[in-house]
Amino acid sequence: MRAALMYGAGDVRIETVDNPTITEPTDAIVRITAGCICGSDLWPYASRPASVEGSRMGHEFVGVITELGSAVTSLAVGDFVIAPFVASCGSCDFCSEGLQTSCRNGAHWGGSADGGQGEMARVPQADGTLVKVPAGFDVALLPSLLALSDVMATGYHAAAKARIVPGQWVTVIGDGAVGLCAVISAKLMGAGRIILMGRHESRTNLGREFGATDVVPERGEAGIKKMRELTNGDGTHVVLEAVGLAPALEMAIGAVRDGGTISRVGAPQFSTVPLGFGEFMRNITLTGGVAPARAYIDELLPLVLDGSINPGKVFDRTITLDEVPAGYAAMAAREALKVLVRP
Amino acid sequence: MRAALMYGAGDVRIETVDNPTITEPTDAIVRITAGCICGSDLWPYASRPASVEGSRMGHEFVGVITELGSAVTSLAVGDFVIAPFVASCGSCDFCSEGLQTSCRNGAHWGGSADGGQGEMARVPQADGTLVKVPAGFDVALLPSLLALSDVMATGYHAAAKARIVPGQWVTVIGDGAVGLCAVISAKLMGAGRIILMGRHESRTNLGREFGATDVVPERGEAGIKKMRELTNGDGTHVVLEAVGLAPALEMAIGAVRDGGTISRVGAPQFSTVPLGFGEFMRNITLTGGVAPARAYIDELLPLVLDGSINPGKVFDRTITLDEVPAGYAAMAAREALKVLVRP
Repeated sequence: MRAALMYGAGDVRIETVDNPTITEPTDAIVRITAGCICGSDLWPYASRPASVEGSRMGHEFVGVITELGSAVTSLAVGDFVIAPFVASCGSCDFCSEGLQTSCRNGAHWGGSADGGQGEMARVPQADGTLVKVPAGFDVALLPSLLALSDVMATGYHAAAKARIVPGQWVTVIGDGAVGLCAVISAKLMGAGRIILMGRHESRTNLGREFGATDVVPERGEAGIKKMRELTNGDGTHVVLEAVGLAPALEMAIGAVRDGGTISRVGAPQFSTVPLGFGEFMRNITLTGGVAPARAYIDELLPLVLDGSINPGKVFDRTITLDEVPAGYAAMAAREALKVLVRP
Repeated sequence: MRAALMYGAGDVRIETVDNPTITEPTDAIVRITAGCICGSDLWPYASRPASVEGSRMGHEFVGVITELGSAVTSLAVGDFVIAPFVASCGSCDFCSEGLQTSCRNGAHWGGSADGGQGEMARVPQADGTLVKVPAGFDVALLPSLLALSDVMATGYHAAAKARIVPGQWVTVIGDGAVGLCAVISAKLMGAGRIILMGRHESRTNLGREFGATDVVPERGEAGIKKMRELTNGDGTHVVLEAVGLAPALEMAIGAVRDGGTISRVGAPQFSTVPLGFGEFMRNITLTGGVAPARAYIDELLPLVLDGSINPGKVFDRTITLDEVPAGYAAMAAREALKVLVRP
């Protein structure tokens, strides 16, 4: 089969690799219907050192089961499934707690394992990992179903960890796919006001469509000043941080109200956070982390199927597998918000 | 009247100062029955630059109202009251949210204002600040009533912000007065196991009396290793950090289970916390902050009055006002856990 490999910063190639096979009785083989490129793929695309062997890429996909290991009980060949961005057993204590990203038997896509940017993938722990989509769904829902594998679940994780109370004011920092899905999530949870901080107009317009009531394009101190003007000088009870860079987290600290919560789902590109004495006196909480997407799909899937939410709108470009290298370049140049790959 | 002033590191003096007077109609004057020295007083005692004018000290006291401003409605002369360590109006939005430390009309003790280490104090915002103790209480409860002004409420804040669920395993870092009160609080909330990390045996013995099920005297990596051995290698869902030094927070990060919460109430003596990519992948939450003691006194006072909790046991020495300088020295040398002052 064919798949994308990254050989270093800016160097993504489509190559022929071995077809996946069942290696554990708990495995499934999925023929990928749609995958995508993630904002987090742009970090290695910007900075990974060159390597000889290359790494398989992609961690979000939906597709059809073509083969099952002997121990898989809840799935059948032909099922259309969503693969969350981490594989998990579904039965350990962490999975039971809804923290599938810390699963004791979990696995990650890509690297030397199959990735979502390819024609097929071996799925470990298929019973725990995959979520079956009821047959007969409208094919137009495909992008939104794909969004459940990562960005929608990640935005929802931000909101869930912040424990948004209906009526609360929420700031979302970042107008990327995850930030926009955080807007959807804040609205789902009844936020009274949603201030989206982002400067790409086409994206913030989509954010307004998703439920943002205000948009602040300024950044840094100017952004904090502007959002504080919108909030009686106080900031908001909840700030969802969907960028992962230090300036975004600093902006979150400036935007959060005393006693409030910053929930971060942007993978941190820094090692410390400035939560010292001043933030202690303000009783600021920092929560969030990598999203256990699997924990939320059962809850979000019906909302996609009945049209209540449409996170698939974050995909603004669809490409073939051969176009994946160009897709990385387009996302890195911010020409595309999020690229859907149809292998 | 006489009161304690700090003129710099290691330099505490008892001097005669002006008697307090009503300056706002919302004020009360309290004759202090008991005050104390706080662990947080030891930070300036260790490092404050020398000054000419000196600062009034102490932020925890109980006493009897001797005079009231014309606008005070809920209190009477002769009432025995608990003064939380921050004054608050009781009616602004932050007070309504239970975050009296961010009160829009609040005030702090000490500095150029009256402090708790003295004979009397002017209390701003008396209606919002003071909590009346029903007349006729057993005088033996005095230390526990005093503990509600800060350390017990602070330990409780740690546990409350961590939202301990009955049965959860909790680690408490620090065997000072606040750490020991955090043990009481974790037990009140139904913690299934309480691991106290501290190395002063007399204190950890009191911690066991308060409900600690395990004591880990080791610190740093050795402490983390030991507590992880006690918890199947995983750490605990909740860690209450009651020290405020960087190594204690690092130990908290090592002791918390994936998906867990560190709740800090030790005033941070550092400006950044090491919550980078690794902790993001583990979904670690950092919460806590300065305790809005006023928010908890209504709930904790009945438990003191009926003997359900006895936080006053953290006071292991009682001194007069003249002995306050020696009291600081004893606490700084760790010869006394917490010193009660009877002016």
